[in-house]
Amino acid sequence: MSRKDWRRPALEPLADNLRRIKITVSYDGSAFHGFQRQDNGESVQESIENALKDMKLAVTVQGSGRTDSGVHALGQVCHFDIPKSSTIPAERFKLALNTKLPKTIKVLSSEEVDGSFHARFTTMAREYRYFAKEMNSSLPFDEKYVGLFKRLPDIAILNRYAAILQGTHDFTTFSSARDISPSKYRDIYESIWSKETDRFNQCVYCYKVVGNAFLYHQVRSMVGTMIEAGLLGESEEEFKERLESKLRSKALRTAPPEGLYLARICYDEAEYAWFEEE
Amino acid sequence: MSRKDWRRPALEPLADNLRRIKITVSYDGSAFHGFQRQDNGESVQESIENALKDMKLAVTVQGSGRTDSGVHALGQVCHFDIPKSSTIPAERFKLALNTKLPKTIKVLSSEEVDGSFHARFTTMAREYRYFAKEMNSSLPFDEKYVGLFKRLPDIAILNRYAAILQGTHDFTTFSSARDISPSKYRDIYESIWSKETDRFNQCVYCYKVVGNAFLYHQVRSMVGTMIEAGLLGESEEEFKERLESKLRSKALRTAPPEGLYLARICYDEAEYAWFEEE
Repeated sequence: MSRKDWRRPALEPLADNLRRIKITVSYDGSAFHGFQRQDNGESVQESIENALKDMKLAVTVQGSGRTDSGVHALGQVCHFDIPKSSTIPAERFKLALNTKLPKTIKVLSSEEVDGSFHARFTTMAREYRYFAKEMNSSLPFDEKYVGLFKRLPDIAILNRYAAILQGTHDFTTFSSARDISPSKYRDIYESIWSKETDRFNQCVYCYKVVGNAFLYHQVRSMVGTMIEAGLLGESEEEFKERLESKLRSKALRTAPPEGLYLARICYDEAEYAWFEEE
Repeated sequence: MSRKDWRRPALEPLADNLRRIKITVSYDGSAFHGFQRQDNGESVQESIENALKDMKLAVTVQGSGRTDSGVHALGQVCHFDIPKSSTIPAERFKLALNTKLPKTIKVLSSEEVDGSFHARFTTMAREYRYFAKEMNSSLPFDEKYVGLFKRLPDIAILNRYAAILQGTHDFTTFSSARDISPSKYRDIYESIWSKETDRFNQCVYCYKVVGNAFLYHQVRSMVGTMIEAGLLGESEEEFKERLESKLRSKALRTAPPEGLYLARICYDEAEYAWFEEE
């Protein structure tokens, strides 16, 4: 099931008496038990809903997707519907929410959208970043914000594996036992490693991956397996066999959540076309 | 009192039955109530002393200087003296301490030194970095690690002020009422602003300052005053008058502690000569 045949659930029309607000949010995942509301700890969703409740708006916040405990967001997108009787300008929500939210969540923008927009069901692409460093050269500031590894392989070998992951594949190998998607096919449009320098002048590996959607734990499993395979000196052929085996036992490792950032959600036809061209 | 006439206290000789260990340490200042041991909260010094106590070494840790609550270290230097009967190789302390310390403190290196080394009294130069960002473009990850300002002036004007601070001056203007140094003269060898890019591709201002020593709150007061003066569009002459007034009331602002990092302590004659050349 590639993006082209992706059957989106039919969107329910937005009731006449409602307005839909879209917000883009960054959060420090180390402060929350994941995005989604749950019983055993504070979630990002609950925090935003509580801030809206303070504004006398008892609504449910719909995210583009969940993020696990410890996973961060640079640009998570959410929407919520408020009664038309509430005349707060959409742009005001950014400031209003930021004054009420803990400092570990920041609303980057807010705007009004119509009923054809749905944070989860109208996404065109999702972009994640994974930051990795060797433990030896890490600083205390990396602990909750970078995935730490005993050793990292050469970036060239990681990029040979990353190229194999690009395209439309059945990603069962990199799925979690807890993934319940009926199809394990996903499209990956971009999959590339780069070396960055942080503000302490230290080298950080950065993996950028853009796809239509991802299975539960897929990005972390791909990152962990690429790194382990690289340290083992596996050939591209061997790595490809792991992907094609469709056996979860062929994944070598799940990278820790601290290094993962939900970077961007794309809803735009124009941006979608840009991905198409590659 | 410039570096050349700096009267160091005479060092007490190291007793024959003792070994001196030097460690270089990075810590996340947001997790501690400053470097120095105190009653009202956990300090970095106490944490290291507790880790040593776990190794059956009841010793006092001497740092190169204090850092305030919230201020970070990339390369704080400390020493402690242990009995010669303890045969642990000096290099082992790095690993041994790191397994016992909280993850917010990391020993970067450990080595044996002789009695002519003293973490505080034999320093040649201290280097600080201050990272600053505009609030609007900040992310939740910056909250405890970058100084946030409503607005930042052009970097060129900041560098004109920074050049004025370089050299040997009476820095009373930028001192705290709590500073008890008999002389307010200090040497600044390097004082420069640069624009860096963090791993999220965001612009961060970085102020690098190297000096023989600093008054209490001096770096934060210089940073805050340069930024405010820049926003006011002050001329270099006006800024120079602030410095030369030797009046604490002429400092405009103390920058928040979160942006400040003790970056490096220099004990080396060769490095000292390098500063000299500038």
